[in-house]
Amino acid sequence: MADTWLPSLKTATPQERFELAAKLARLGVKLTQPSAEVRDRLRASYEQDSAQLIASSQVIAVQFQTVAAANNYWRN
Amino acid sequence: MADTWLPSLKTATPQERFELAAKLARLGVKLTQPSAEVRDRLRASYEQDSAQLIASSQVIAVQFQTVAAANNYWRN
Amino acid sequence: MADTWLPSLKTATPQERFELAAKLARLGVKLTQPSAEVRDRLRASYEQDSAQLIASSQVIAVQFQTVAAANNYWRN
Amino acid sequence: MADTWLPSLKTATPQERFELAAKLARLGVKLTQPSAEVRDRLRASYEQDSAQLIASSQVIAVQFQTVAAANNYWRN
Amino acid sequence: MADTWLPSLKTATPQERFELAAKLARLGVKLTQPSAEVRDRLRASYEQDSAQLIASSQVIAVQFQTVAAANNYWRN
Amino acid sequence: MADTWLPSLKTATPQERFELAAKLARLGVKLTQPSAEVRDRLRASYEQDSAQLIASSQVIAVQFQTVAAANNYWRN
Repeated sequence: MADTWLPSLKTATPQERFELAAKLARLGVKLTQPSAEVRDRLRASYEQDSAQLIASSQVIAVQFQTVAAANNYWRN
Repeated sequence: MADTWLPSLKTATPQERFELAAKLARLGVKLTQPSAEVRDRLRASYEQDSAQLIASSQVIAVQFQTVAAANNYWRN
Repeated sequence: MADTWLPSLKTATPQERFELAAKLARLGVKLTQPSAEVRDRLRASYEQDSAQLIASSQVIAVQFQTVAAANNYWRN
Repeated sequence: MADTWLPSLKTATPQERFELAAKLARLGVKLTQPSAEVRDRLRASYEQDSAQLIASSQVIAVQFQTVAAANNYWRN
Repeated sequence: MADTWLPSLKTATPQERFELAAKLARLGVKLTQPSAEVRDRLRASYEQDSAQLIASSQVIAVQFQTVAAANNYWRN
Repeated sequence: MADTWLPSLKTATPQERFELAAKLARLGVKLTQPSAEVRDRLRASYEQDSAQLIASSQVIAVQFQTVAAANNYWRN
């Protein structure tokens, strides 16, 4: 992977935080399977599999908790 | 997706928070599978599958934690 | 669903909190599968399936964390 | 179930807390499948299934977080 | 099980905390399946099954959160 | 395993924290299956299995919460 792929968790809007959470979920897969070719091949099947889509949404939800806490739940 | 799909986590009632949590769970699926057509097709099967309904409820539960914390557990 | 199905997370006893957590877990399923008829049919199979019962208990556990935190872990 | 099955989360030792977490995990199953007869029958199979034992341990872990927080992580 | 199997969550180093988390994950299995003989037999299969090893790591991760919080994230 | 394999959770950048979370996820597997030979063999199959890659990302997400909290969400 590129040298710097996660510079900060600071984000300006809820939507950016959610997108960052989704990026972190993908990074978790990427660290385990570094080959973009293999990931692309796998994508073709899991994006048609609702159980795996729900599992992906679960990972995003856990990452979103972290991004939200890191940004103090945008209360200030 | 539309340009702004998550303007805020601020909500007025517990019920609105729960509905927002369910929306965030769906957004997690949407970011992974952007095609509404594919999602509609998949819906027909997972909404008849109790294991996947329980898994969906799990994602909502995790998102509900975040929405609850973001709203300070509605204590003030 | 009825207009108001989640008026508050305030509860008086640990047991009421646990029952509320179980209700929230069911609400997560209900928001995804609104048909009571379909849910009743599915119930017949998942209530005989230990893996799904454990998964249901997991959702209740996550919801119980939220209800507990919302009630300040009943320390005051 | 008996009228009062969860009087308090207050416990005196880490071990009692862990046992309470395990009890809460079982209560989550009990609320979904109230029949002791069915649960006993299911037990015979899941206690021989490592995947389900790991899933049970996961539910206990989540409940243990709640019991630990409710007891202020036994720091005072 | 022996009378006292969880005397404390206090630990001196990050590594001891991680090992305690792994012990708690095993205790969760032990409370559900008390027979050492059955657990040993099951071990032979799940330690060759990557999905179950990942699930075990997930339980350790949740328990590690509790041990970390109990030790105030070793900031003092 | 080597005598000291987890000296600290202190890290300097978000990226190092994410990499530490991935290391902790692997350590959870390692404590359960200590044989490097078996883990290498299993790797060949799970790195081609999207469901297991998503499950791995889930473990990393949970560990990332702990590392993030331990570093005070890098707010100071």
